[in-house]
Amino acid sequence: MNSVTVLAPATVANVVCGFDVLGFALGAPYDTMTLRLTSQPGVVIINKDDYNLPTEPRRNVAGAALLALLRAVSEPIGFEVEIAKAIKPGSGIGSSAASAAGAVVGANALLDNRFTQAELVEFATYGEEVASGVRHADNIAPCIYGGVTLIRSTEPLDIIPIPAPPLYVTVVHPQIEVKTSDAREILKKQVPLKDAIRQWGNVGGLIAGLMKGDYALIGRSLEDVIIEPVRSILIPGFAEVKRASQEAGALGGGISGSGPSIFMLSQHETTARQVEAVMQSVYHGLGIDFHTYVSTINLEGVRVMPVETEINIPT
Amino acid sequence: MNSVTVLAPATVANVVCGFDVLGFALGAPYDTMTLRLTSQPGVVIINKDDYNLPTEPRRNVAGAALLALLRAVSEPIGFEVEIAKAIKPGSGIGSSAASAAGAVVGANALLDNRFTQAELVEFATYGEEVASGVRHADNIAPCIYGGVTLIRSTEPLDIIPIPAPPLYVTVVHPQIEVKTSDAREILKKQVPLKDAIRQWGNVGGLIAGLMKGDYALIGRSLEDVIIEPVRSILIPGFAEVKRASQEAGALGGGISGSGPSIFMLSQHETTARQVEAVMQSVYHGLGIDFHTYVSTINLEGVRVMPVETEINIPT
Repeated sequence: MNSVTVLAPATVANVVCGFDVLGFALGAPYDTMTLRLTSQPGVVIINKDDYNLPTEPRRNVAGAALLALLRAVSEPIGFEVEIAKAIKPGSGIGSSAASAAGAVVGANALLDNRFTQAELVEFATYGEEVASGVRHADNIAPCIYGGVTLIRSTEPLDIIPIPAPPLYVTVVHPQIEVKTSDAREILKKQVPLKDAIRQWGNVGGLIAGLMKGDYALIGRSLEDVIIEPVRSILIPGFAEVKRASQEAGALGGGISGSGPSIFMLSQHETTARQVEAVMQSVYHGLGIDFHTYVSTINLEGVRVMPVETEINIPT
Repeated sequence: MNSVTVLAPATVANVVCGFDVLGFALGAPYDTMTLRLTSQPGVVIINKDDYNLPTEPRRNVAGAALLALLRAVSEPIGFEVEIAKAIKPGSGIGSSAASAAGAVVGANALLDNRFTQAELVEFATYGEEVASGVRHADNIAPCIYGGVTLIRSTEPLDIIPIPAPPLYVTVVHPQIEVKTSDAREILKKQVPLKDAIRQWGNVGGLIAGLMKGDYALIGRSLEDVIIEPVRSILIPGFAEVKRASQEAGALGGGISGSGPSIFMLSQHETTARQVEAVMQSVYHGLGIDFHTYVSTINLEGVRVMPVETEINIPT
């Protein structure tokens, strides 16, 4: 196999109380990437979308991730990568993670899956470093593992897949810019111990609720007393979206990543669609353009597409 | 049934990273209490041990808990309670919680179990208020529910039983005094956000490890970067006990409650016994008297003893 196509999904990181530790993969949207194994060492990036992302491999998220992977390979090989992004950069749903994760999962498929998922996460974090200056795995981990992931520790990296019951996710991406650097600077460096205790009680409740399939407990645990009160002021419509979504039956939700996207979890698809309608209504009312997405949690992560084999008909 | 005997176990609260939210019940030691239903409204306390605890019901932990329960009862009834404590007050393994929980579970048995476990926890917290001034449920919850419990929220009270694999607990109680008030005052009111994140990553990991039965993950998650570094200085021998216990094969552990007891978790009983030996060695070396206990996690909580029924042989 010399070429492969992968679908790299969007992801939600900073899941409410689980700031910096909990993330999950979405069914939609996703980027489409085609990788070709070449005998020319290095990486060639070909952008097939309108985002004008850098093509110099060191400065491209997928390129930097692939260069990290190639440093662990002894053969003189390289990759040519065509990238058609559907996940808009800066949306807060893991656009850069999809590029980085898709690239290394595709490359690994071309190398007979010689690397573990944990190794692929490590390589992909070099892509995140290009995007944000930090080798964080909050989005990379769920993008590669699929489902819900807990990053127990970053140093050393310790990724724990968390089993979860069926959940529907509604995401709204208002077309405004929230810089990750602003979203980070606005946070207080010190937090009250009593708030931290409430937060880790909720993290424990959320993990237990997911693993027990206890939707009511999941809903009660989707509370963030530390980050959301500070960051949500950067997102017009946040409070109204949250209130209206919960009135429509959502279990709960919050800011996706560092925003501006907002996600809500629901037990049923019909609820998730109603949540989508109230989100649309809020941003129509505010006169802000937006996209919405409804999907289940994506248990697979990056999908490697089956190769269409050439059929040789004997003559 | 007019009288009942209950065994009320010791408990470990503040389970390492799970400060103020995670606790579990021990197999030993436990208090023995006998309750009699009387037609005299109010509570009579009879102490059968050498701790000289107050007998005035309002000032006695079991008494205050029973008075809270009686406020929810419409009949003109009362209880006479004999208490033989084996759990030394001030040990950090839930001595007051055992008195309060044992009392209300016993009373409930005499009232045909009309109250839920959650209601019993509420009543019992009035006993904790007598002991420490705070109606906390950290020890009450595991004492009544058994096993491992998460207190996701105190306001409103939300207790989540956490399934756990077989675990052995070794406890050492050095005979020194650590006042709960001192242990609380020494804590910083503000904590660095990065430490809080590490802590809630560990809480998530510990819950996931317990529910998956993943002993290695349990061990990695038994890390406390906020409370233990501050409080452990109040307990002579703490660092040495912890280091030697882990060298002996313990998964990990820390301060029980607010100390001075220290607990360690092990996967196997043989390891738990070796851990007991190293604990004994440390405190022998320091010339500090101590008690040690080895048990499994107690899945039952307060045990209501079967009543010996009188056999009437027809003549």
